Formats: sequence, structure tokens, C-alpha cells
Amino acid sequence: MIKLNADLGESFGVYKLGVDEKIMPLIDMANIACGFHAGDANVMEKTVKLAKENNVEIGAHPGYPDLLGFGRRSLNCSPKEIENYVLYQVGALNSFCTKHQSKVSYIKPHGALYNDMMKNKEIFEAILTASSILNLPLMILSSSKNEEYENIAKKYKVKLIFEVFADRNYTNDGFLVSRKKKNAVIENKNEILKRVEMFKNGYILSENSKVIKLKVDSICVHGDNKKALEIVKSIKEVL
Amino acid sequence: MIKLNADLGESFGVYKLGVDEKIMPLIDMANIACGFHAGDANVMEKTVKLAKENNVEIGAHPGYPDLLGFGRRSLNCSPKEIENYVLYQVGALNSFCTKHQSKVSYIKPHGALYNDMMKNKEIFEAILTASSILNLPLMILSSSKNEEYENIAKKYKVKLIFEVFADRNYTNDGFLVSRKKKNAVIENKNEILKRVEMFKNGYILSENSKVIKLKVDSICVHGDNKKALEIVKSIKEVL
Amino acid sequence: MIKLNADLGESFGVYKLGVDEKIMPLIDMANIACGFHAGDANVMEKTVKLAKENNVEIGAHPGYPDLLGFGRRSLNCSPKEIENYVLYQVGALNSFCTKHQSKVSYIKPHGALYNDMMKNKEIFEAILTASSILNLPLMILSSSKNEEYENIAKKYKVKLIFEVFADRNYTNDGFLVSRKKKNAVIENKNEILKRVEMFKNGYILSENSKVIKLKVDSICVHGDNKKALEIVKSIKEVL
Amino acid sequence: MIKLNADLGESFGVYKLGVDEKIMPLIDMANIACGFHAGDANVMEKTVKLAKENNVEIGAHPGYPDLLGFGRRSLNCSPKEIENYVLYQVGALNSFCTKHQSKVSYIKPHGALYNDMMKNKEIFEAILTASSILNLPLMILSSSKNEEYENIAKKYKVKLIFEVFADRNYTNDGFLVSRKKKNAVIENKNEILKRVEMFKNGYILSENSKVIKLKVDSICVHGDNKKALEIVKSIKEVL
Repeated sequence: MIKLNADLGESFGVYKLGVDEKIMPLIDMANIACGFHAGDANVMEKTVKLAKENNVEIGAHPGYPDLLGFGRRSLNCSPKEIENYVLYQVGALNSFCTKHQSKVSYIKPHGALYNDMMKNKEIFEAILTASSILNLPLMILSSSKNEEYENIAKKYKVKLIFEVFADRNYTNDGFLVSRKKKNAVIENKNEILKRVEMFKNGYILSENSKVIKLKVDSICVHGDNKKALEIVKSIKEVL
Repeated sequence: MIKLNADLGESFGVYKLGVDEKIMPLIDMANIACGFHAGDANVMEKTVKLAKENNVEIGAHPGYPDLLGFGRRSLNCSPKEIENYVLYQVGALNSFCTKHQSKVSYIKPHGALYNDMMKNKEIFEAILTASSILNLPLMILSSSKNEEYENIAKKYKVKLIFEVFADRNYTNDGFLVSRKKKNAVIENKNEILKRVEMFKNGYILSENSKVIKLKVDSICVHGDNKKALEIVKSIKEVL
Repeated sequence: MIKLNADLGESFGVYKLGVDEKIMPLIDMANIACGFHAGDANVMEKTVKLAKENNVEIGAHPGYPDLLGFGRRSLNCSPKEIENYVLYQVGALNSFCTKHQSKVSYIKPHGALYNDMMKNKEIFEAILTASSILNLPLMILSSSKNEEYENIAKKYKVKLIFEVFADRNYTNDGFLVSRKKKNAVIENKNEILKRVEMFKNGYILSENSKVIKLKVDSICVHGDNKKALEIVKSIKEVL
Repeated sequence: MIKLNADLGESFGVYKLGVDEKIMPLIDMANIACGFHAGDANVMEKTVKLAKENNVEIGAHPGYPDLLGFGRRSLNCSPKEIENYVLYQVGALNSFCTKHQSKVSYIKPHGALYNDMMKNKEIFEAILTASSILNLPLMILSSSKNEEYENIAKKYKVKLIFEVFADRNYTNDGFLVSRKKKNAVIENKNEILKRVEMFKNGYILSENSKVIKLKVDSICVHGDNKKALEIVKSIKEVL
């Protein structure tokens, strides 16, 4: 069973972001911001409650301590700092889960921290350390290097959850086409649904129509606007 | 058995505060800052480790989100906000306890939040709600109104821990003499030790030498400098 | 000539607030957030540019250092701290004015700081001190106590700008009816326009239809939504 | 005339850093933190006052918005963001100079921002843009590439101030030996004083005793402790 995951709880104080109420009923896993790059204690409480009501798995979505940049800017931290930032944020989220008789089910880093984790093994291991301490699976990008990541994760006894993107093109090497290239993002709904079908069958066609086998535990979706919500509904039906 | 408690883990980034390594071996309960008014993820990790090594109980020491004011300035939050701020901070600290095979044993609010809790029943109940959710005792100021506070806490099924100050004068009504008054703080070591003896016997002499009966679970001590550390050592011997 | 003023530049990072582009052409004075309760360096730069392009006077809109609470929560600072917070924020805004060949023309505190200034003379004097140092007028709430405020401001050689609210009811004593009361806010457009006419003639009818004389330098308007923008357009025509 | 410069005003809230009162009388130029990586409005006010009393030139010392990392961690900002961060911070400092009848005389970026400026021409140009808008000289690291930097600065009509380090070894290419190498820092006082003599004569001997010609407008000194202060006093005498 492939699950749908999305980033939620990204509002802060008076600032609203996203339509959490509308996308929550459509997904299986909610990556909830933890107050460093987005979200605050009040937003976290409400989002956990909403997830619980919709029977959605709760994932901690920790980021760099950079609200000003929404966690999208790489910050040159030490692995130890990153481990502690992740522990701090996941722990904070956990209190709200306790309140709502739920629990954190996995960790998915946000934005620049996610990208840095995929590029830098030291950072990957720092986040694995935190996952291991808290006994939680870690969600990462599925690629042709899955085995390499899994071998490392095994040392930390951490289960990996592999996610893919139905609205992104893949290279022949099985990675995401860089957003700097024109064909990086796929906007046509039918095209996206075709790709979901491929993922169901364990592969994706690369930008050059090469068959790439990929492990797919979850598809990451977005729900920022009406059109996006429509696409999520359709993906859900396909699955 | 009367226990000694002290505020620790109040450094932040490159900024050092206190002599945690020196006072930790002398106390029984460490109130550890949680990143809102002081402390950060790295400092919290180190302080929890130090507490564990010294077999000291770990208390969460949440404050207002005001690093600039060290949590000493009252911030006009709603009870709901306060409940969530406390949940957030205690949860964050808990991750580091998990790392070091320890756990948070109680909650003691910091600075202005502590004072506001003692003055405002709505805030007291907000913090009781958080304590109840996390199933943790709450440390408050022992005074002649203990029974009133206990009756409220019972409704939340929260155990209260009553603390006293050996270096502060008490009024005839059993409260601390305001810091605005000259006789608020007692600096003479022998005088302080005499008061510890009184606490052992369940009372304190007020500024006008009236006997005030007080419940004493813990004495709050400070360890900012050499002289303070000497006093803590002597108090420990008396106890 | 009565001028229209509005709060702008309240976005932060990825978080958008308000429709600055739409309301800027309708107003005479823009109160621009300075990064403590809202706004950031990038938002400030853009908002100053927009004000300059629309030939709108630029006011600094400093607040308490409380982004989480949008500056709407009173923070128990010392007068000296408040003076320094105002100096800091106005100075920061001034750099962007220098960039766009403009200048800060006045100071209007935001939210809780504005309310505290009107309630507490020490805070009023702290902000007057900052205004005096920077040689800028200060915008305050027009009420039946204007003379009292003016006498204090004279000592600091600071010019006061008196603002009124066309969508708020006034008491017989010439103050705003508390927002806790049902009749605090007026939503009917015609009613609001009638009140603008009264302000043009130097008075307002209180909630009990008593004539209250008020000095009116500026009317504060809001532009958060379509309806609000319509009202601002109509007020502009009346003026 | 070679001037001495030092970083000051790095305290924050209750957190004290450095011995500003002791080093201020020994230096010619004070690089004052502006609240992003260190310093706050109150600290800035006091430090500007102290500089004025000691007749010391005031430099703005802007950093990345990273108090947690003391501005020592590179943050992947856009040049436009950096330009705005510098404008914001210098403007804020300027208010306190206005208060004390002084003015900001130059800009020297802090920590990671300083290093990134020396490595990345886009960042250098972003900071030049801010310097140009505010009509202020920019202090940078003197190296064998001075001419290259000066050619760029000329386009922005910004004067450069070249600083050197008397306690750091230089490579044959005229750059600082990396701190990762053992011989990066020179601690022997006599050695340091000899190097000051060389700087007076417009050169330095590299780690391999090669003569490197360097433009020297200012020597950067530190005053964190007693020994450091002694060295500053001796350097002052040599100059």
C-alpha cells in the first residue's frame, strides 16, 4: 500500500499558510512543522488534533532554526547540532501527541535539512542518530542509491520510508531532475496520474524514457491551492 | 527528606551562564531551561547528561518565549498559549532524557511565568493542564495558601511540590517579602543555615518573628558564584 | 487636511499578510512594521519602495519583540528598553528610506505597545524620548485628554499627530469603546462615512449621541480585504 | 597611521561577553554587533556611548541572523537578502549614534558573513551595494588580492579599509593560514609584536619566510581576557 504524505502545520502566529483542514482528510501521513522553520506551539496542537480526528499518521517535520527563511536555506551546522535540533523538535511535537492520545510515527526533515541529508552522509547519520534514540523510522527520498542509504540506516537500526514525487521528472540515474531545469516539474494532471500508476508498479520512466526501478512507500503531495487539492483527490483514487 | 533544587542549563549558544558542573553534584533536583527564555538544544543535551551522571532528578524549567528578557518579563499570553508553551518545552527536554536513559520528573516554571502562576489562577490552571497531560508533578512556592492551591491541583490529579527559599524573608502572612524591600534577601550564611533548620522543623520565622508553618518539599538554591556554592554546601550538610 | 494612515509591511519571510499593493495608492501615510512584531528586512525594503512610488509618507511602526504574538501582547519592559527598541526599529527602517531617496516622517507604535503608551505615562515618555532623539513626530490616539499628552510632548519638543478611527464607537468621555463591548466596532459603510464627515467638522457623536470635540490629523484605515478596500476608497472621496 | 580595531558589544540580554570597558580605551575602531548574531538594542546603546566617551570610531558589525550560532555558521542567503540584512543592521546602530552625537564610520561584516564575503564575489557586491547606499567604507581582509577587490569596490564608489591579523600566520600567497592547521594562530607575544613591526613597514613574512607586501589600514585585536588585553597594550605601544 502506497501512502500519501504532505507537509502541514506551517502557519505561525497570525500568519496562515496552507489549507490544512482541506488536505488532511485526503492524506495518510502528515509531516508537521515543529517551530524551528515554521509552526508554533499553538499551531502544532491544532494540527495534531486535526490529524488525530482524520486518523492520519503524524510525522515530525524538523527543520533548520530559520523561520525567516522557512528552513529553505542551508545552515552550516555541525552533525551534533543537527542531531540535537531534531531531538528537540520531535520531542516538542510529541507532547501534543500525548495530549491527543496519539504519537509521532516517523521523522521527515524539511527543506534545506532534507536536501542536505540526501547530499551529506554526516548529516544523514546525525539524523539517523536522533531517529535511533527516539526509535522512529526516517523518511527519505527514494533514488537509485536506496541500498546505500539502507546499509547505513541498518547500523542505527532505523527503518527507512522511501518517498517519491509524482509531479517531478527523474534522471536516467534515478534522481530528481534539478529544479533549475525546465522539465523538472510536471503540471499536467493526466501526466501526474500516469506516473502514479508507474509508481504502483515499482518504476518510473526517466526524462529520457528509461525505466527506473524505485522503492515507493509514500508519495509526497502538496495542497496549497484548489488545483493541487484536485490532483491529490485524483491520486488518491488511482491508489 | 528535603531536597535541594537549582536552575541550570541557562547558557545559550556561545553565551555561558552559571557553573553547572560545580553545583550539579550538590543538588537533588535540576530545573533545566528549555530554549524559550534560556538554554538551547545543545545546552539541554549536555545538562541532562550532567544531571544523569550525578544522579540528579530532572525538572523541566519552561519560561515565556523571551530570550531577550531571560523570561523575567511578564508576557500577556492566553492560558491556552501558556499550556501549549509548557507542553512544547517539556516535550523538547524529554527527548534528551530519552537519549540519556532518564526522564523528566517534574515541572517548575521560570521567572515571570512562575510569578504569574502564583498570582493568577487561570495561569496556574493552564500549567496544571499541561502537567496533567504529561502526568508530571508541578513545583510551586510554598505559602500559607498551599491548601488552596492543592485543592485546585487535585481537580487536575497533579501532585504539587512545595519549595521554599532559605535566603528570603517571609511576611507574617507566609509569603516572600517583596524584593523591593530592603530586608527581602538574607545574605548572612549563618542566618541562612538557621532558617534551613527551621524549614526542617516545618516552619519559618517571619520578618516580625512570627512562627509560620510551611510545607517544605524542596529548598531552592543558587550557584552562580563561589560564595553561593559555599552556602549550598553548608545547607547540604545541615540537611 | 485630514490624512489616511494604515499599517503595512506586515508580511514575514514566506508569510504574506495584507494587500499592500492595493491599499498603498489609497492612503497618505504608511505605518511600516520594522521586524520586531512583523516585517523583515526584505519586506521593509519592498514596502518602502512601494510607498515612495505612491508618494506616501513613511511612518515607522515599531512593536514589542514578539513575532509569535504579532506585537499584540503586552510585554513588561522597562521604559529604557522600550526607548531602545524604538530607536533600533526606526533606525533599521531608515536605511531602506535612504536607499529609496525617502525618509521616515513619523513614529506610530504598534498593537500592545500603542495601547501601553496610551495607558502608561512612563512608556509614553520613553517613546517621546526616542522620537525626540530622532527628531520625529509621534502619532497617538486622539481623545479628550489630548491637551495632557501635548503638555508632556512639549517637554520633549516632539510634535504629536492625532489619529481617530471611523469604524469605532466613542464613549461620552471621548475614548474608544472597549472592544469587549458589542457596539465597539461599526461595520456599516454609510455609518462610517457619516463619521468621517463629523471628523471633518472636528467632532464625533459618542455612543450616547453626545458631541465630542476631537483633534483629527489622520484617520486610521484597514485594507485587509475587498470590503475594507471599498470603504477606504469611499472615505477618500468624502475627504 | 595604522589603527586598532576590535569586535565589541557582543553581549545579549543577561548574557555577558567580553570586557568592553577595558578594551575600548586601547583601540581606535570598535566593530559593534547589531542584534542579528549578537548584541541587542540595550547593549548597542551602551556600547555606542562607551565608544563615544573614548573617542573611538564606530563601525557597524552586521552578521547573519543566527544568534544561536553567533553568526559563525554560513547561511545560504541570496545577495539581495544579505544587502537588506546589512542595511537593516547598520540603520539600527545608527539610531544609537544619533543619540550620542556620533555616527557609524564604516562597516565590517562578522564571522561567517565576513568569510563568505571574501570567498564569494556576489556576496561582496551585495555588501558593497549596502555600503554604497549608506555612503560608508567597508573593512575587508588585506591579502594579495587587494587590487582585485578594489577594482570592484570602485564601481560602487566604496572606499575599502584593509585589515590584518598580527596573531595569524600568512601563506606564501598572502592569505591567512587555515585555522585547521597547527600554525594558524600565533600566541607568543614577542612574535606578535615583531609582526606588528613588519605591518608598520608594509609587509609580513609568510609561514615559509617569504616577504608578502600587504596594505595595512588596521590591525584586528581581541580583548576577551587578561592576556589578550596585555598584548593589545603592547601592540599599541609599538604603533
